[in-house]
Amino acid sequence: MTLNDVAEILLQNDNFEILTHAHPDGDCLGSGYGLCLALQQAGKNARVITVETPKVFDYLKNGVENQDFEAEYIVSVDVADEKLLGENQEAYQGRINLCIDHHMVNVVEADHKYIESDSAAAAQIIYKLLGCLGTEITKDIANCLYTGIATDTGCFKYTNTTGNTLRAAADLIDAGCDSGYINRVMFDTKTKKHIQLEKDLYDNIIYCCNDQCAIIHTTLEMEKTMEKEDMEGISAIPRGIEGVEMGITIREKDNGLCKISVRTHGKYDACAFCQQFGGGGHKAAAGCAIKGSVDEVISILMDAAEKVI
Amino acid sequence: MTLNDVAEILLQNDNFEILTHAHPDGDCLGSGYGLCLALQQAGKNARVITVETPKVFDYLKNGVENQDFEAEYIVSVDVADEKLLGENQEAYQGRINLCIDHHMVNVVEADHKYIESDSAAAAQIIYKLLGCLGTEITKDIANCLYTGIATDTGCFKYTNTTGNTLRAAADLIDAGCDSGYINRVMFDTKTKKHIQLEKDLYDNIIYCCNDQCAIIHTTLEMEKTMEKEDMEGISAIPRGIEGVEMGITIREKDNGLCKISVRTHGKYDACAFCQQFGGGGHKAAAGCAIKGSVDEVISILMDAAEKVI
Repeated sequence: MTLNDVAEILLQNDNFEILTHAHPDGDCLGSGYGLCLALQQAGKNARVITVETPKVFDYLKNGVENQDFEAEYIVSVDVADEKLLGENQEAYQGRINLCIDHHMVNVVEADHKYIESDSAAAAQIIYKLLGCLGTEITKDIANCLYTGIATDTGCFKYTNTTGNTLRAAADLIDAGCDSGYINRVMFDTKTKKHIQLEKDLYDNIIYCCNDQCAIIHTTLEMEKTMEKEDMEGISAIPRGIEGVEMGITIREKDNGLCKISVRTHGKYDACAFCQQFGGGGHKAAAGCAIKGSVDEVISILMDAAEKVI
Repeated sequence: MTLNDVAEILLQNDNFEILTHAHPDGDCLGSGYGLCLALQQAGKNARVITVETPKVFDYLKNGVENQDFEAEYIVSVDVADEKLLGENQEAYQGRINLCIDHHMVNVVEADHKYIESDSAAAAQIIYKLLGCLGTEITKDIANCLYTGIATDTGCFKYTNTTGNTLRAAADLIDAGCDSGYINRVMFDTKTKKHIQLEKDLYDNIIYCCNDQCAIIHTTLEMEKTMEKEDMEGISAIPRGIEGVEMGITIREKDNGLCKISVRTHGKYDACAFCQQFGGGGHKAAAGCAIKGSVDEVISILMDAAEKVI
């Protein structure tokens, strides 16, 4: 199935609902609203179905018309598994007509699937698709797709960024997207509370395995005083310390559990490390949950790290 | 003067010395070594003249041949003013044949000047120039030019990033540059001392102009205990605080001077701000030096900020 086939299918249908995953990020929302705007531009009815949209992404809805229609054709974007639809899973399970995604493993059941796992972002696929659809890339569409590409690549910093990723972003900048605003809001803004949090985390960094492993942790108290946005990006802190190959972030939760995030530079397998504790993920970024106090969990993780490193 | 003219001049001459500015950054070094490699590939003698090269940039010298020759043709890259040559100024003042730069204000005296101020980085100009020279973009050259472009744009985050900036970087990734390694080392690695420094800086943030301006400062003592690489990126800290439009970083130097770096989001003109104190730069990032103690300089800058904001 080519992208031209996908475009053909979209042009032959109408009354679209576009599904995004729960805990939506810039890529699923940017892909969703970008595709919605393109379908509306093509004279179709379309809406995006989300569980919730963080306020910071409100600008992605610019230019989207609220249309009243009964859904006929269901498209999922950036959804690797129906389970990830969250509270929308029940309503849409088994009803997806077209699945567009960039995840290597995609288990969605759909009439048609278009998966391109070497695309850094679903929005990079949507950008190409819009070329097949003959969509005029408006500023609103450019903002959506740029947001998707930039957020899924850490502003082009991650190794998933290819030449074509940058070329798509280049076209979107030329189409007038507010890359300055988007980059600033997504990558260059720390809340005052986040800065306080960083200070507190820095005060308690634990090193082990000849400083190749660094562990930071939040306490229940920190978790309670911080908003979700204040916690953004903390899991990247320990891996970012010079010489550290495995960075571990422990977040104390109020159910007697600690949530663990493990990041590596690829030398050690974060996924295998977390699987010992019932978790999983990718080689360079994975997670798990462990019962116990922060101190107990630190000791468990240090032991586990010593065995690997 | 077109880039083709610049290429023509380079091809007509030989025995090049390429000047970079003192306190060299990724852009002047990447541009310098990238151009040096291209000239050597064209069968010329060439060397890069630096004041000092931070160890982190050592990989930029990969593939550069040490050639023994007497300099005949002097090219400066990314140098806006002979003063910025540091200890090399005396030896080269008045001797520069060709000046290639992307700074809006460039006062270098040279036989030929090629200034392209809408290029995000000098390395972006060098990339185009290499096209005119017919250079084969090797992995080593790609690493140099990618480093220049990525560092001068904050990994494509700053507003100086245009479609053409991203297209140049795309070509360099396709040419095999180690963007993953470079991004990790340049943007995702903090030394332990840097983390200590951040903590100290966070402890002393001063806000003014209704929190639209934030000022951080180092002391002489911090400056003495920190290596240059530990100080990387601190100028970006105050502007990155939510709501801050102008971020000012003051670094106390041991000659009774404070070095000032001003960053804005574009609403206020950092260059104009710094020009009042004999400095200059770009609209969103500029610098100057002011005589006085840190406290005196803070008070001078707060007064100046109140007048603008």
